[in-house]
Amino acid sequence: MSENTFVVVMAGGIGSRFWPFSRVNYPKQFHDVLGMGESMLQTTVKRFSGICPPENIFVVTNREYAPLVREHLPHLDESQILQEPIGRNTAPCIAYACYKIAKRNPTANIVVAPADHVILREEAFTACIKEALSATSKEDILVTLGIKPTRPDTNYGYIQFIDEPSHTLKKVKTFTEKPNLEIAQMFLDSGEFVWNAGIFIWNAQAIIKAFKEFLSDMADTFEEGTPLLDTDGEHAFINKAYSHCRNISIDYGVMEKANNVYVILGDFGWSDLGTWNSLYSLSEKNEENNVADGNLLLYDVHNCIIKTPPHQLVVAQGLDGYIIAQHDNVLMICRREDEHKVKDFVSDAKAKKGQNFI
Amino acid sequence: MSENTFVVVMAGGIGSRFWPFSRVNYPKQFHDVLGMGESMLQTTVKRFSGICPPENIFVVTNREYAPLVREHLPHLDESQILQEPIGRNTAPCIAYACYKIAKRNPTANIVVAPADHVILREEAFTACIKEALSATSKEDILVTLGIKPTRPDTNYGYIQFIDEPSHTLKKVKTFTEKPNLEIAQMFLDSGEFVWNAGIFIWNAQAIIKAFKEFLSDMADTFEEGTPLLDTDGEHAFINKAYSHCRNISIDYGVMEKANNVYVILGDFGWSDLGTWNSLYSLSEKNEENNVADGNLLLYDVHNCIIKTPPHQLVVAQGLDGYIIAQHDNVLMICRREDEHKVKDFVSDAKAKKGQNFI
Repeated sequence: MSENTFVVVMAGGIGSRFWPFSRVNYPKQFHDVLGMGESMLQTTVKRFSGICPPENIFVVTNREYAPLVREHLPHLDESQILQEPIGRNTAPCIAYACYKIAKRNPTANIVVAPADHVILREEAFTACIKEALSATSKEDILVTLGIKPTRPDTNYGYIQFIDEPSHTLKKVKTFTEKPNLEIAQMFLDSGEFVWNAGIFIWNAQAIIKAFKEFLSDMADTFEEGTPLLDTDGEHAFINKAYSHCRNISIDYGVMEKANNVYVILGDFGWSDLGTWNSLYSLSEKNEENNVADGNLLLYDVHNCIIKTPPHQLVVAQGLDGYIIAQHDNVLMICRREDEHKVKDFVSDAKAKKGQNFI
Repeated sequence: MSENTFVVVMAGGIGSRFWPFSRVNYPKQFHDVLGMGESMLQTTVKRFSGICPPENIFVVTNREYAPLVREHLPHLDESQILQEPIGRNTAPCIAYACYKIAKRNPTANIVVAPADHVILREEAFTACIKEALSATSKEDILVTLGIKPTRPDTNYGYIQFIDEPSHTLKKVKTFTEKPNLEIAQMFLDSGEFVWNAGIFIWNAQAIIKAFKEFLSDMADTFEEGTPLLDTDGEHAFINKAYSHCRNISIDYGVMEKANNVYVILGDFGWSDLGTWNSLYSLSEKNEENNVADGNLLLYDVHNCIIKTPPHQLVVAQGLDGYIIAQHDNVLMICRREDEHKVKDFVSDAKAKKGQNFI
């Protein structure tokens, strides 16, 4: 474990594809989605305990979630919780964290990871991360982790790489965000594509250089504000900085444009757990192929995923292939094969007057 | 309106086929099932306001529901609420009420009706009741109201009558409790059968005579206790009497055996509203043939009945012909065609430990 290694956990999302379970005031990363006895955020931070010293872990989150982060990670110092005034996708989030880390330690080696992904084989994951860190400590490159695809998933981004078998770090050729099914199938068949896990490794100077080159306005903003980071002026600076920042992902803003991007192929049981079906595939099924979590009486119910609060009895009869999810003031019943419609539900629920259902 | 006329409203049932909406601690008769702005009990009592003086209305209920009855009918005197210590079906309930009324007024003319039925055309209903009362004020006969069946419903009792077109009161030949579908269809086709609405009209002496003849043990009990009715001893007497009484319906105990039973054919938009499907048929449907009550977002949902609390958003997608009912701590999703299984659900829910779901 190197004192030089830092980890940035991105915990500002609202996981809206997991609605109504994931909610604006209590998003997915704060839930114990898989029933492990701890929240996804807690699992994620714990996962990096062998990678860097505990004081080198930073959690970036929306200001609204800061109390939840404190509650879930009471050992974090207040300065380790980076509060965004507004969600602006991953590029500003990463700029904030990396400029702050670079100020503390200009030779920092940084891992950036989302707070709400599942990784089943932690040792294999740690080995990958260490391999990447070893490379980025020597070279100014941008490394991402790629997962061998097992299905033509249209919810993931795909990375095309140049396969030189002797190289662990494969040069990246292209990034493609959420392709349609036909293209996803082609990617899968070609063997040249891996899923983009959204986990990045680089040193502080490499990412700052990339920001300067590809997101120069953002680089200017954070460059100018660097003297204020880790001072009483940080809060006000960040408020101002975020009001200027474009809403843009690091993939689109930097990774797709840079030519020093490499991917390490990982096989560590990864899922972004972004959708109900991904939870279904990861979870243990009962005899009727149901993933059933709650106080249930099921009759002629098959291939369903049911997630309801324990204080409520759910009686279901005659259902095949449905999501039944209840959380707080929302009940959703939806065909599993139509789960891509959840985003429409969320948008329609937003328009409902009176209570907040999002 | 005659001072001699009394009305007994039976409000002790728990309406378990309407579970989870109808619950042991808040049964159907206390709900505003059709969204009329008042409970079924309130509607029922109001319906008889033109039939008898308000002080001649008695509500028989389980002792546990007495507070609910007081709340729904605050104008009732305490002596008008007859409290059963335990549910024993309709025969003891009717014996209690009729012996009490007979003591107050031996020439009383009595209507007995359930608290949780729907009657859409009140004027036609009132006309029927008045016709029956006119007959029972002159003759010691037992009159019941019969409804022309519109479908081979297996949830209703059927009455076969001798059709003499010149007579409004038709002599009853047989009673049949809930036949199977084949027999129900035969009954429907024959034109000789009507549904038993469970609404009875007789004078006090006629019903007491019938109790003496067909349920003599019950008659003995109430005969002996008559001096205690309307005294401080009533409560203790009723406790003791009910501990002796058999659990038996008035239909089975008296009506099927007596040979002075007549039926008046009524056409007043009656339903016992005993099941989810009966509520579905009675209710207004939207364009997709849904009976939808609640805060809903429906996508590709057809032929469903949805009854959920207004504070909760229900998002349903891809469902055809389902009941979605939520009340208190129970959510039920069940195919409409399988609603006869609700009684199994109730029995299985009873076995669930921890909370009370019934």
